[in-house]
Amino acid sequence: MNIKEIKGGVCAPHGFKANGVHCGIRKNKIKKDFALIVSSVRASAAGVYTQNLVKGAPVIVTKKHLTDGFAQAIIVNSGNANTCNSDGIEIAEGMCRMVERVSGIPADDVAVASTGVIGQKLSLEPMLGHIDELYDGLGDNSTAAAEAIMTTDTVRKEVAVEFVLDGKKCRIGGIAKGVGMVCPNMATNLIFLTSDVEISPEMLQKALSEDVKSSFNMVSVDGDQSTNDTCCILANGLAGNAEITQKGAAFKRFAKALNYCTVKLSKMLAKDGEGATKLIECKVKGAASLKAARTVCKTVIKSSLFKAAMFGADANWGRVLCAIGYSGADVDVHKIDVTFISRAGEVKVCENGYGLDFSEELAKKVLTEDEITVLIDLKSGNYSATAWGCDLTYDYVKINGDYRT
Amino acid sequence: MNIKEIKGGVCAPHGFKANGVHCGIRKNKIKKDFALIVSSVRASAAGVYTQNLVKGAPVIVTKKHLTDGFAQAIIVNSGNANTCNSDGIEIAEGMCRMVERVSGIPADDVAVASTGVIGQKLSLEPMLGHIDELYDGLGDNSTAAAEAIMTTDTVRKEVAVEFVLDGKKCRIGGIAKGVGMVCPNMATNLIFLTSDVEISPEMLQKALSEDVKSSFNMVSVDGDQSTNDTCCILANGLAGNAEITQKGAAFKRFAKALNYCTVKLSKMLAKDGEGATKLIECKVKGAASLKAARTVCKTVIKSSLFKAAMFGADANWGRVLCAIGYSGADVDVHKIDVTFISRAGEVKVCENGYGLDFSEELAKKVLTEDEITVLIDLKSGNYSATAWGCDLTYDYVKINGDYRT
Repeated sequence: MNIKEIKGGVCAPHGFKANGVHCGIRKNKIKKDFALIVSSVRASAAGVYTQNLVKGAPVIVTKKHLTDGFAQAIIVNSGNANTCNSDGIEIAEGMCRMVERVSGIPADDVAVASTGVIGQKLSLEPMLGHIDELYDGLGDNSTAAAEAIMTTDTVRKEVAVEFVLDGKKCRIGGIAKGVGMVCPNMATNLIFLTSDVEISPEMLQKALSEDVKSSFNMVSVDGDQSTNDTCCILANGLAGNAEITQKGAAFKRFAKALNYCTVKLSKMLAKDGEGATKLIECKVKGAASLKAARTVCKTVIKSSLFKAAMFGADANWGRVLCAIGYSGADVDVHKIDVTFISRAGEVKVCENGYGLDFSEELAKKVLTEDEITVLIDLKSGNYSATAWGCDLTYDYVKINGDYRT
Repeated sequence: MNIKEIKGGVCAPHGFKANGVHCGIRKNKIKKDFALIVSSVRASAAGVYTQNLVKGAPVIVTKKHLTDGFAQAIIVNSGNANTCNSDGIEIAEGMCRMVERVSGIPADDVAVASTGVIGQKLSLEPMLGHIDELYDGLGDNSTAAAEAIMTTDTVRKEVAVEFVLDGKKCRIGGIAKGVGMVCPNMATNLIFLTSDVEISPEMLQKALSEDVKSSFNMVSVDGDQSTNDTCCILANGLAGNAEITQKGAAFKRFAKALNYCTVKLSKMLAKDGEGATKLIECKVKGAASLKAARTVCKTVIKSSLFKAAMFGADANWGRVLCAIGYSGADVDVHKIDVTFISRAGEVKVCENGYGLDFSEELAKKVLTEDEITVLIDLKSGNYSATAWGCDLTYDYVKINGDYRT
């Protein structure tokens, strides 16, 4: 199947416009903090959300608005998570009503998300003062929207692909933000996807729910699961394909294109983890079950000691074995092989659970690259999985030592 | 019940001698790396060990030697964990046989432990060259033994208490090492306890197994569970009390004195976590079950974001709520109160899950102290628990970026 990367982010699919502006929630005037994505027609909509018991008010409101399987717009602010506030629901609903007022799209067809500090009151005022500017500027501005949802992100995260269904060109686009408090469970920080594929809400939800298990849920920056994790997708059907209403070849092609986008965004999220200097990919193969494969690679990617070793380009594979051992997965520790791989080459450091003599010089060279794969072969079955994370650095501590100030 | 702190560490109880020397496993010649603790008579012995599937060879050997409930000596090296080595068991047994040769104590009455890098071969040679010196120097040298088991620890950890059973003065002493890879499960890094109480091996094991649930298992430095966690206790009966062979008043008194020692060592372990500048104590009350109380406080103490906020003296209580929410414990998020407490005062920051207006100035003052308590009231029941951890600092990253070199 041919999947081609294209430009345009969330505006690449037909019928989608976006924008991002500075409204004043953030003090820094050059930092956009208010974003809007709108489809020209009502779209099938699906979402996955944080499993944290402490949920941001926007998560609760979006879940409610998407219950009927349809939506037409997504409104987002950064700089304040609107979480643990007694008036949170009211504020989140107010953001949706703002969209209704300027666009005519019913408030309950609007998804809403907020990201930033937890537990500080969010005022509608700055947004009310800029909603017209935001709406009037809607256009091919995926980049502005991607910038407006960033918090401590250092790069904006956009993707778009083109593929063919029933001879019709179809597109999926996405933007995301990540950085800290990243260890999603069934969803991750903020990810907004658009598509012009025609697909029923049920099948769209099925595709998304299945997808996140191998994409966003396999990312960890710091093991902290955010209260505001939201991943939602709108598919407006303007590509003109025959509507996907059941599993089959078309559904598979759509799911594959979707996974291309979500894995790409997952890697961007991991690589831009707070303070990160390296993307760390952990591939597990030979697992006795999919669950074991996923558990092992996610545990390794979350280990603070392993992450610090990666920062120091130290081939301290004992920490990989240690993390596998406490992961809770049922593995035979006397069968584990570990290899470090990067552009600079590869070096096998552990075989059957025991250390190998390896060239420290080569290991240093391999681990000094900025994208590193640790390959773990459990030699106990046919399941595999991949997880993405980053190194643990001085800057992570610096950024999070005074995030609020 | 009167528990009095006394001097002497593991040598405080009658009949125990200890020593620590430099044998050369570590390159740094002023760093001791070889320790021995010996009882003048055979003692009841109990142990708890790491639950990591990857276990250090000494853990396996000690478990075997303590199966019969008795032991008389403990031998330990630092600088090498003797883990993931194909000849690990042989080396660990060799260390026990060394003790037999110089002391006459049967090798299978010797407990053995190693701490340091995983996956590097450990040679018996440096130890063989210094076992006579180590044995000949046995005396009131708990401090030397405590120093010899340190790795990146910055302070040695010793404790001893005196209490009365049946009108007889009894004593418990202990030494410990911690620092990194500290997130024990049923045991923690290396902790050696001695006592002159007369108690059956069964009751000693029961006391220890119960104790660690509220002491060492409630400590987390970095969420990484070591492969070599070992906590063992020898009780030689020289205090002359009536042997404790069942639950009852005497067992309770012994357990209370033991818990005094283990909690004190737990706090020392947390405060000296790698790179730590602060001891963080998380107290949970009002939980619906003991399990919920323990889960909540341990999850908070492990959150990288919370730990970084504590380093920065930032009253970012949203991260506390966030961690409670993903802990997996069944809590009512709309009942949670959070208060920060230290010598400088206390400041309540969250009530019923929502933020309170609080003095940022006072909060800064409270959090700038080096011992901080975060008190969480779940207002849903009568169970409580306490966990200990530390802040996440630049130095944690520095220490662990190049631990092996």
